[in-house]
Amino acid sequence: MNWRDIFATRMNQMKASEIRELLKLLDQPGIISFAGGIPDPALFPTDAFQDAMTEALSPGSAALALQYSVSEGYAPLRDWIIAEMGKLGIPCTRDNILITSGSQQALDYLGKLMLSPRDTALVCWPTYMGALGAFNAYEPHFDRLTPGGNRSAEDYAQRAAENGGRVKFAYASVDFANPTGETLDLAAREEVLSLADSLDIAVIEDAAYQALRYDGEPVPPMLALEIARKGSIEACRTLYCGSFSKTLAPGLRVGWVCGASQVVSQLVLIKQAADLHSASLNQMAINHVARSIFETHTAKLRDTYKARRDAMLTALETHMPDGVSWTRPDGGMFIWLTLPRGMDGGALLRSALARQRVAFVPGQAFFADRSNANTLRLSFSLANDTQIDAGIARLADAIRAG
Amino acid sequence: MNWRDIFATRMNQMKASEIRELLKLLDQPGIISFAGGIPDPALFPTDAFQDAMTEALSPGSAALALQYSVSEGYAPLRDWIIAEMGKLGIPCTRDNILITSGSQQALDYLGKLMLSPRDTALVCWPTYMGALGAFNAYEPHFDRLTPGGNRSAEDYAQRAAENGGRVKFAYASVDFANPTGETLDLAAREEVLSLADSLDIAVIEDAAYQALRYDGEPVPPMLALEIARKGSIEACRTLYCGSFSKTLAPGLRVGWVCGASQVVSQLVLIKQAADLHSASLNQMAINHVARSIFETHTAKLRDTYKARRDAMLTALETHMPDGVSWTRPDGGMFIWLTLPRGMDGGALLRSALARQRVAFVPGQAFFADRSNANTLRLSFSLANDTQIDAGIARLADAIRAG
Repeated sequence: MNWRDIFATRMNQMKASEIRELLKLLDQPGIISFAGGIPDPALFPTDAFQDAMTEALSPGSAALALQYSVSEGYAPLRDWIIAEMGKLGIPCTRDNILITSGSQQALDYLGKLMLSPRDTALVCWPTYMGALGAFNAYEPHFDRLTPGGNRSAEDYAQRAAENGGRVKFAYASVDFANPTGETLDLAAREEVLSLADSLDIAVIEDAAYQALRYDGEPVPPMLALEIARKGSIEACRTLYCGSFSKTLAPGLRVGWVCGASQVVSQLVLIKQAADLHSASLNQMAINHVARSIFETHTAKLRDTYKARRDAMLTALETHMPDGVSWTRPDGGMFIWLTLPRGMDGGALLRSALARQRVAFVPGQAFFADRSNANTLRLSFSLANDTQIDAGIARLADAIRAG
Repeated sequence: MNWRDIFATRMNQMKASEIRELLKLLDQPGIISFAGGIPDPALFPTDAFQDAMTEALSPGSAALALQYSVSEGYAPLRDWIIAEMGKLGIPCTRDNILITSGSQQALDYLGKLMLSPRDTALVCWPTYMGALGAFNAYEPHFDRLTPGGNRSAEDYAQRAAENGGRVKFAYASVDFANPTGETLDLAAREEVLSLADSLDIAVIEDAAYQALRYDGEPVPPMLALEIARKGSIEACRTLYCGSFSKTLAPGLRVGWVCGASQVVSQLVLIKQAADLHSASLNQMAINHVARSIFETHTAKLRDTYKARRDAMLTALETHMPDGVSWTRPDGGMFIWLTLPRGMDGGALLRSALARQRVAFVPGQAFFADRSNANTLRLSFSLANDTQIDAGIARLADAIRAG
């Protein structure tokens, strides 16, 4: 049987993730890894989840926790999210919230909602590779979103038409983005909104790291800025994607989309056809834990990760040779390194794994056009101070040797 | 903003489910409902899930349960499934199993894997409406699968070509199917496999109700029959979809696909891009509960549901007027009723809800071509004997009045 004849055309664009293949190499002893962008499991609020599960599976609640439920999501959790969105300047109601299985699923559903083959998605260069992967399933073209650049709306529209479709949305990870750690400032957010207005397209605002700010003043979400312009979420084109993966725990797979109800109702249809609903039990547990400890727990995360970021910035200052530059993020989990021109992050990884025993993610996979091979992503979320200093020293050795 | 211009073409085919809209009406007091095809929550193994959660969130395990995990699924759960598949005549390895968020997600991913717009999917008339919904997102045509009929492979291929694509797969719910309760017999299964061989297409075997047989001898899964023909799962075109929703609990959203490794590896790529992985904690809990009580618990379910099926068949014999016929399923949750020609199940539901206070699902939504309005689906999974007798008497009154 020739399965290639059976597979849909979209499968030509779906390839195994390099990060994923790479992570299989990290089980070897002695390697210091800055590769995985994942929370430190030592910080998970395990006791709170134990309490939450005991409550969810108690006699008055178990029948609900273990049964089918509605595609929109568990109403008390949506209510908690509504209150949080309100604090961010986003007044909304239950009709504006869909619970998803992590914000990755929100990106998949938004691609499914908007992209027909040959349509164009605007993304930053570099951007979250999971967004490129989710959108790729719907066979789009990617064009480069450059807040602060000076490409006109007409230019974007014309390029998209030449590719056989139209621009459907601009996607941006707004706070301490994966992979760069950088934040879109107020002017850049306003500019993306104005471009979206000119092109009459949607905006996907990925706010996965929003709660992990260590310095500086919060910048309002693009959805809040757009509501300030237009008066109501119902008039807005921005679709905000939130996640509990970086604040409470990724293993329960709970995230959300917040946007105009006429869009959320379409996403509900997509979810109903795709997996019926996110696990009832998990939504109840997240609701319980969020209501019990969200503020105190995220404060603890910020203290710990801030110290690790500071340790990594100090180690970079101490060890890196000339010609290497890096970002100085106000939050999140990532620092982005630019190597001297001509160096290749992939080749560096292979030699660094073999000789210096240090791991990171080569930057190329974060670019829709596979450019900028002389970049790499470092995560500081999992390592302690000693590992950070030793690992960055090893990385500097690898760069000097490369 | 005109969202219709932004939405993908697939959204033209995605409509709100009638069942779903209908279920919103069932909160009214005094209605006896045979509508929802869902397990009886009184039968959920709540204590076993409490034990499982306590273990999964214990100090040695919580870091795994709450963290990101691999897209393929939790290895010990895949091992349990491998042993179960072996008992059904399906020898396989971990590379043949993907854990999904319910078998609904398996259907979505299989549609995503194989269907480009204008391809053809073969389905029974009627079939599981959730399969029609999942596949619809990929803009196929549907053609009618008629085991025991005499349409040639050439006829199917030619019709598909006329519609601008090719036949990609045949989908069938094989045991006590939703909505008819009927089982594909051995000859019909062999015939579907032979048709698939002739057309060089895949077969999607939906086995969601497989463990709920109350009478008669089990029929081997199509995947087992194909392995018997071809020697190895790696040579097979059948993709078996299993679920824990009908045996342990739907609210955790755990199911699986079993098939050739070259197909499963592509489904892993799809899952990675779509939601990263199914909830780690849920997979660990299902694994614990399955290993503790699967056999004894499903035996208990069979005893209870068998008695309800018998009660409903008896009530139908007692109350139904001439001209009404129904299926006599060997298992599952459903009986399928055919009304006198010319009667409309949707109109009957509206009058039955208003006057006789009894609910069911009109049959039309289970037909890809929206034919056969004179049918309806009854579920016996949720009602006790008294409700069943009273509810069927009310339904008979409604039919006589209609």
